Amino acid sequence: MSAGGPIGIVAGNGAFPAAVADAVRAQGRDVVLFLIRGFADPALERYEHHWFRLGSLGSVAAKAKARGIQQVVMVGGLTRPRVRDLGLDWTMVRLLPRIARLFRGGDNHLLSGVLGLVAEQGFQLCGAHEVAPRLLLPAGVLGSHGPSAQARRDIALGLGLVQTLGPFDVGQGVVVVDGLVAAVEAAEGTDQMLARYGELRRSGRLRFPAGRGVLVKAPKPGQDRRVDLPSLGPATVERAAEAGLAGIAFEAGGAIVPDAAALIAVADRLGLFVAGVDEGLS
Amino acid sequence: MSAGGPIGIVAGNGAFPAAVADAVRAQGRDVVLFLIRGFADPALERYEHHWFRLGSLGSVAAKAKARGIQQVVMVGGLTRPRVRDLGLDWTMVRLLPRIARLFRGGDNHLLSGVLGLVAEQGFQLCGAHEVAPRLLLPAGVLGSHGPSAQARRDIALGLGLVQTLGPFDVGQGVVVVDGLVAAVEAAEGTDQMLARYGELRRSGRLRFPAGRGVLVKAPKPGQDRRVDLPSLGPATVERAAEAGLAGIAFEAGGAIVPDAAALIAVADRLGLFVAGVDEGLS
Repeated sequence: MSAGGPIGIVAGNGAFPAAVADAVRAQGRDVVLFLIRGFADPALERYEHHWFRLGSLGSVAAKAKARGIQQVVMVGGLTRPRVRDLGLDWTMVRLLPRIARLFRGGDNHLLSGVLGLVAEQGFQLCGAHEVAPRLLLPAGVLGSHGPSAQARRDIALGLGLVQTLGPFDVGQGVVVVDGLVAAVEAAEGTDQMLARYGELRRSGRLRFPAGRGVLVKAPKPGQDRRVDLPSLGPATVERAAEAGLAGIAFEAGGAIVPDAAALIAVADRLGLFVAGVDEGLS
Repeated sequence: MSAGGPIGIVAGNGAFPAAVADAVRAQGRDVVLFLIRGFADPALERYEHHWFRLGSLGSVAAKAKARGIQQVVMVGGLTRPRVRDLGLDWTMVRLLPRIARLFRGGDNHLLSGVLGLVAEQGFQLCGAHEVAPRLLLPAGVLGSHGPSAQARRDIALGLGLVQTLGPFDVGQGVVVVDGLVAAVEAAEGTDQMLARYGELRRSGRLRFPAGRGVLVKAPKPGQDRRVDLPSLGPATVERAAEAGLAGIAFEAGGAIVPDAAALIAVADRLGLFVAGVDEGLS
């Protein structure tokens, strides 16, 4: 067994699990993917893997222990599983009362709750940023466009707002345009918040021209970054462009960028800035 | 001229201007309504009145001064005026650069900005709650349904959140369900926020049963209550019921109830509670 053994990657949907797997292997460690049936991309079968159903953590735990896995990371989204798709095993049935509570609070609560249960099975939970730090959003501007002075002020306002919202466990995103807080993300998610701002502009209720304003996202203060660090990819840039924003600012180190080259290509093509920022942004 | 002269009521749309006019007259003071063309209800012509276009504050000021009016209150909504509907006069043209800025920030900014300009014309701006205090939402439960213990906790969480958002000049509303902040109102307004929560439930992204959760609204800390104290009527109760909430809590004294009997009738029929609450809510 190599130092620490392989890293177990519990894979939800999207391209993010492959990015983490590649980054971990580039550091010389083995990976074993546990692919969630109905969510994980079948292309992930190119790695050492096991398929499992979301409700069958008991079987995953047994296979992971047998393979010498001590560290587990979970990446990729889980959208609205139905109970009959879960494939409940006895480990999960015992935990059902707690799981039922988790389900009521939306995806983020579900994800973090399930991961808490994984930890109880005897594994060390790691964040994607810990096992693959090169995927973390760096500080600074990523593409060829940078934020204007006004955009920098909007970013600072948005960061302050997200940090203020932290104790209320509210979503991590906000749209700020020329000093106005135009939209705050709660349970609806970033995409829907961006669409809402775009619609407020198109309907004329907000009269900002296109190419102004910023999507600002940051992890909640005290948020467990091993669990639900937001990821930032080309789709978010496209949504921000459709909404008419000037750019995107995520807290530096507070988001995962699965594919920086693809992100930059889209941002440059659409004319948006993408910046990693911290509280010291001037 | 009676003590202080008549009260001038600048009337936007809705039933609210008539409620204020009746409440003022019940206290023995005269009213003169200045009806905003394209917005005010023509039924308001039953009061002493002048029609004017939104951009013609200069003519309003002259008429009001000639009638001995010293105090002015503005009530009713102004939805998305188009520039060509404004009927700009020279007083307004001089102020256009400031007005142009106001327009970009949405309805609330527009309303408060225009009122600031009215004050500069030499009138005392009053709030509807000052000239007609009996229209203010009282503390306590208004209808026959009261909040559960969980709803009271949700109300307290929502009030705290709205107060925290105050310095960011963000909207005054939030939906809290069983301890989860499900939606935060910014530029989109209360109705759209309620519709969003209802859609999150119907789509299954949030799995709260109907009849749980609370719409909480409060004036922003430091907000000028003479200008945009929210009003609370049967339509808001209907929207909250459609969204699947258990009830509505507005800060006591922080909202205008144009027609309490109609509000209570709808709330009782739909099974929702309506409460005026303060920070001391237990």
